[in-house]
Amino acid sequence: MTVPTKLPLIAVTMGDPAGIGPELCLQALSRPALAEACLPVVFGDAALLTRVARACHLPEPAQVVNQREDLRRLTAPAVLDLPGDGVDRVDPGQVSAVAGAAAYRYLETAITAAQAGQIDAVCTGPINKQAFHAAGSAYPGHTEMFAALTGARRTCMMLTSPVLTCSLVTTHLGYRDVPAALSIDRVAAVIELTAAAMTRLRRNAPRLAVCGLNPHAGEHGLFGGGEEEQVIQPAIDRARRAGLAVDGPLPPDTAFLEETRRRVDAYVCMYHDQGLIPLKLLAFGSAINITLGLPFVRTSVDHGTAFDIAWQGKANPNSLFEAIRLAATLTGSSDG
Amino acid sequence: MTVPTKLPLIAVTMGDPAGIGPELCLQALSRPALAEACLPVVFGDAALLTRVARACHLPEPAQVVNQREDLRRLTAPAVLDLPGDGVDRVDPGQVSAVAGAAAYRYLETAITAAQAGQIDAVCTGPINKQAFHAAGSAYPGHTEMFAALTGARRTCMMLTSPVLTCSLVTTHLGYRDVPAALSIDRVAAVIELTAAAMTRLRRNAPRLAVCGLNPHAGEHGLFGGGEEEQVIQPAIDRARRAGLAVDGPLPPDTAFLEETRRRVDAYVCMYHDQGLIPLKLLAFGSAINITLGLPFVRTSVDHGTAFDIAWQGKANPNSLFEAIRLAATLTGSSDG
Repeated sequence: MTVPTKLPLIAVTMGDPAGIGPELCLQALSRPALAEACLPVVFGDAALLTRVARACHLPEPAQVVNQREDLRRLTAPAVLDLPGDGVDRVDPGQVSAVAGAAAYRYLETAITAAQAGQIDAVCTGPINKQAFHAAGSAYPGHTEMFAALTGARRTCMMLTSPVLTCSLVTTHLGYRDVPAALSIDRVAAVIELTAAAMTRLRRNAPRLAVCGLNPHAGEHGLFGGGEEEQVIQPAIDRARRAGLAVDGPLPPDTAFLEETRRRVDAYVCMYHDQGLIPLKLLAFGSAINITLGLPFVRTSVDHGTAFDIAWQGKANPNSLFEAIRLAATLTGSSDG
Repeated sequence: MTVPTKLPLIAVTMGDPAGIGPELCLQALSRPALAEACLPVVFGDAALLTRVARACHLPEPAQVVNQREDLRRLTAPAVLDLPGDGVDRVDPGQVSAVAGAAAYRYLETAITAAQAGQIDAVCTGPINKQAFHAAGSAYPGHTEMFAALTGARRTCMMLTSPVLTCSLVTTHLGYRDVPAALSIDRVAAVIELTAAAMTRLRRNAPRLAVCGLNPHAGEHGLFGGGEEEQVIQPAIDRARRAGLAVDGPLPPDTAFLEETRRRVDAYVCMYHDQGLIPLKLLAFGSAINITLGLPFVRTSVDHGTAFDIAWQGKANPNSLFEAIRLAATLTGSSDG
């Protein structure tokens, strides 16, 4: 009789079959250091993984299970096979509705498994948004899909790296639509979600900084619609009354300088590029994406499908390894 | 009879008397390496400079002239004395209307002198915007004041450093007001002004990159109001038809990564923080601010008045030295 493992079970969704997701998953499955911290289970297509393993000279999956299996009885990394029509004809680097639909199916199955308690956390491989939309999905990204399918009311995207961590008040939203999407409740929710996540990650009370929206944070109302005074400051005040250590609203252009970073554990940013520009510059592709506010932990790589190098064995797996490890850490510490 | 110098005459405005501008000007006046490239003339207050020199243990001004002097006959660095009521009572680090009015007067006099051909270029010391506004100036910054007083129709702010150069399509404008301020003409003008300046600086045809406005540059119209397709792309097309090498619209969050920077001489950014966040992170305070499109060259330091360390001799003068040197270079090469 096998003894069920106590390691956290992490569903790793394979992402778009035509991208670099499959080869990264193959590497995660055969990585001993990862298997010490968790049990990765790739939600994907076993036949396609075998094709990619041969193309990239990587080990083929050692263990393949199907949806009838009780994942809680697994004792080693495995592939949960979710075969789909046409995936055997997917070519590397090609946008297709078949590949998009497959990527969607891996995610949907992982979310269902997480909600049923069959797995502890989800780590997502890269999807191609064009393929995703061609397959009929209307979600602008992973974060929005997870929020919708779990019915979570307050979620946000946080990107974390050793050098910089940013949560986003608005994410995949047009520039002009951002001001109307800011509210005291929304900014306060992102502050609270971020503080809770950083407490789990750092195991002590985090210090947060909130960016302004306007140049120079509005310079005392000189620029903009008073968003700093009417929305951001009241949200900061509310978080402070709840006992959180929150600084801001900071002028965005100097907020990320080293002397400020030294005293800040995480930033709350008003819009996508306010957080992503400094993050991509400072974290050099090492950032991990976490969706906060879901009923389970979800992490993700911070890179795309890299269609130009797909199935060539050139893709760097470190971001996926880190994302899986972080999912395991967050899952473990939420138990403790 | 003295032989008038052929070195470019650079007016250096002293900035807010209560800030670090005066001590930086004193250092510029006594810097032999600068005097080889140009003749700096500080537009400021001689008595105040003497007070600051004593406080900071710096050399007092060696040559002081007044407004009746023909600056073209100068053969050595000098102070053009512009005394003002109450400046003798200015204290370091204090915001005051007297100091703001004085800073305004130095600028106004320098602009008049440049337009009259008495000087070749203007390099501006740091002003305090609160003091500037307390003195009755309605300009949000230097750039806007220079544009208004010279009647220049097309100007823009460019920030340049060895590692990154960015021009701004909009500058000191509230976040929500940016989309309406973007037009094909405006974006095209900034591309053209930037190309012309970079040609003078680099002495060869520059390669420019234009950022999108929306996350992922709108991702094929998925986010935003179609600004990439309707405004930015047509401006890029117009510049290309005029023979310029222009790439874009680039997704803003990856535009500044090293692999892109290597093939780009200057970026055109849609709004203040899109350019200033990466610039402050990468250039570490070494950026020089140039106003493009004026009838004469204008450069500036990229730091503030640093009231907290004013008159203590601690301020780093390198940014001002670089700004003066760059003004001399741009002036020299526009002759050649």
